[in-house]
Amino acid sequence: MTIDAANRAAVKRMMEARPVLIGVAAAKDVVPGMRERLLLHAGPPIRWDRMSGPLRGAIIGAVLFEGWASNEDQAVELLRSEEVAFEPCHHHQAVGPMAGVISPSMAVYVIEDATHGNFAYSNLNEGYGKVLRYGAYGDEVLAKLHWMNEELASLLREALAETDGIDLRALLAEALHMGDEGHNRNKAGSILMLKALAPVIARVAPTETAGEKVLQFIGENALSVLNPVMAACKAMADAAHGVEGSTLVTTMARNGTDFGIRVSGLGDDWFAAPAPTPDGLYFSGYTSADANADIGDSTITETAGIGAFAMAAAPAIVTFVSGTPQDALNASLEMYEITVAEHKHFTIPALDFRGTPTGIDIRKVVELGVTPRINTGIAHREAGVGQIGAGLARPPIEVFENALVAYAERYDI
Amino acid sequence: MTIDAANRAAVKRMMEARPVLIGVAAAKDVVPGMRERLLLHAGPPIRWDRMSGPLRGAIIGAVLFEGWASNEDQAVELLRSEEVAFEPCHHHQAVGPMAGVISPSMAVYVIEDATHGNFAYSNLNEGYGKVLRYGAYGDEVLAKLHWMNEELASLLREALAETDGIDLRALLAEALHMGDEGHNRNKAGSILMLKALAPVIARVAPTETAGEKVLQFIGENALSVLNPVMAACKAMADAAHGVEGSTLVTTMARNGTDFGIRVSGLGDDWFAAPAPTPDGLYFSGYTSADANADIGDSTITETAGIGAFAMAAAPAIVTFVSGTPQDALNASLEMYEITVAEHKHFTIPALDFRGTPTGIDIRKVVELGVTPRINTGIAHREAGVGQIGAGLARPPIEVFENALVAYAERYDI
Repeated sequence: MTIDAANRAAVKRMMEARPVLIGVAAAKDVVPGMRERLLLHAGPPIRWDRMSGPLRGAIIGAVLFEGWASNEDQAVELLRSEEVAFEPCHHHQAVGPMAGVISPSMAVYVIEDATHGNFAYSNLNEGYGKVLRYGAYGDEVLAKLHWMNEELASLLREALAETDGIDLRALLAEALHMGDEGHNRNKAGSILMLKALAPVIARVAPTETAGEKVLQFIGENALSVLNPVMAACKAMADAAHGVEGSTLVTTMARNGTDFGIRVSGLGDDWFAAPAPTPDGLYFSGYTSADANADIGDSTITETAGIGAFAMAAAPAIVTFVSGTPQDALNASLEMYEITVAEHKHFTIPALDFRGTPTGIDIRKVVELGVTPRINTGIAHREAGVGQIGAGLARPPIEVFENALVAYAERYDI
Repeated sequence: MTIDAANRAAVKRMMEARPVLIGVAAAKDVVPGMRERLLLHAGPPIRWDRMSGPLRGAIIGAVLFEGWASNEDQAVELLRSEEVAFEPCHHHQAVGPMAGVISPSMAVYVIEDATHGNFAYSNLNEGYGKVLRYGAYGDEVLAKLHWMNEELASLLREALAETDGIDLRALLAEALHMGDEGHNRNKAGSILMLKALAPVIARVAPTETAGEKVLQFIGENALSVLNPVMAACKAMADAAHGVEGSTLVTTMARNGTDFGIRVSGLGDDWFAAPAPTPDGLYFSGYTSADANADIGDSTITETAGIGAFAMAAAPAIVTFVSGTPQDALNASLEMYEITVAEHKHFTIPALDFRGTPTGIDIRKVVELGVTPRINTGIAHREAGVGQIGAGLARPPIEVFENALVAYAERYDI
């Protein structure tokens, strides 16, 4: 099989995947390989001593959330002792936005690819303000996480059990026609999820106020659907992984220090290099000097053909990531140069319903010197501060060059 | 004051209007001048013998709904006897889509313009399939209307009473950034309304299943918000009406036979001519030979600067009204030629956030020979069949010419 044929096979699997949100469960009950004293995090593997501020903050918060320590000092001591293990979400069929920390007790969304039968997982989205995913771990952060893990998760679980699941591929296709790009702009998708769940939540809520509070929480958070969407993209990317001879990128992820990719035909090896600092718009009082390096598994959206790749569908996004609507169009147009297909299900009205650019080919990236575009949130470099802006980033080209060298060695070219 | 100054004053009032959905009530309790044996309808005034099939069907349905007759034959006899009066919705601060029939007992949305204090009203949207607004009046149509008038209306009334109202200007501004144009495409707006109401509906619903059914009905109807939006546009247009010397159009409406307009500086006079038949896409099995002439008060959206005027914001709409995304862009661009302002609150991301073309000037229409563009549903010409397509229309230019002649006479120019 030629490389092109391998890539066609891989991207076909990616596009034929049909991820369906089927449930909510505790990570330890469903995530493969999840165990006590294990914390999952965004991006490629990393040790405590190399972690950035926001990732450390989220890790400390997760230790407190699990009750493995009762204060910050104890938590840091425990973490330095190496009695807690850290592994990438991506090693466990999971993804998480920003710090992406998932601990054993945390509730996760369960997504099944109805086409290929594989599963993917993501944690629940906390909304805005002080949140674990940006490295905050104060009392209010932990209190909200406990409420989410108990009341929100159990009502979502009960509600989803009453449905046939939510077809996230169909939801995303619709959201792209409603001004979302699926990564930084998930306004439409979040209320499409609300629309699917609201009637059954009204029916199964244990009390009127429990139903009210959950519907308010989901409705007021324009990122509610981000986490299920990321897990959906993970399921699509995983379906394309492991095709012998394919040069398709199946993972792009950042841990706040390194940016790593994995390639369909290169097994589980990561190719990583220092993560860039995003360019973008900062909230009042912050500048790029405050910014952490790029962080999060949310680049799984671009990996699957949405996010910045679909930005032409979301011109209004420039109000918070910077640039003009023409820049948003150009972003999608440029990505056709480094991808192998136009998506069969995700289309962009403004480009005459052309399919989104899908399936990044490391050969094209290296040959053209054009790296993938990424839309992203920007975290403060210190633990606990939170989001300070949103913007645009590109991975370091070395990761694609290194992957291509490894490919040549592996396939003896 | 010059004509231009009068138009600036009028369009300023139109754009500064801030319509808020504040309640639901029976038409007879709130709509000014509503009385027993009166039926309101879309468009300019018309007698029974000149009414088209779908308007007659809706009128018959309303008579049966009110219990003024117990079958179709009795209803027609009553209607021919002239014991039932017909008046335009527009004469009663109201609007209704398609046939636009509002009877005394029917529940209506109550919209208040928070800036100027005027009110506007519209009936509740029935969704798809066999519906009164397309002239259907069978048992299932009447059963649904009774359910809406009782359970749906009372839950909406209770829920709205628990809120500060829904700011429809803000909702529309957001929906235009989410691929709606506010007339034929109201997907985003409808679920934005759902988002605002779902938590409180979950709380105040008399039973779990009542809440579930109402949330399902609102969520599954992508036109749920059309009627409140139309009333919002009516409130905005009314705010601009009655400015001495202004040539701004403040009403465009069709009754299925005639297309009529009214002008800010010309009092309550209608200028009417035969309504056109829309061009568009037909549902399977139907052709333009089955189409009724254009019908409905929904052109109040274009009158207020949205609908076809904002089509550049809604490229995905071409899948059901025909044309290409470029046509949608061109529609908005052309409308800048015949309007006097760019909207301060309604902006189009794809046009670099330019305000929508707002405030039709009859002078420009006549001088350029460019009539307003309209997005519309297409009704079958026979009563009771229903919607057979969706498409595009333009009013007859005579109505603008006649208005301009009347203006010259009235102002002695």
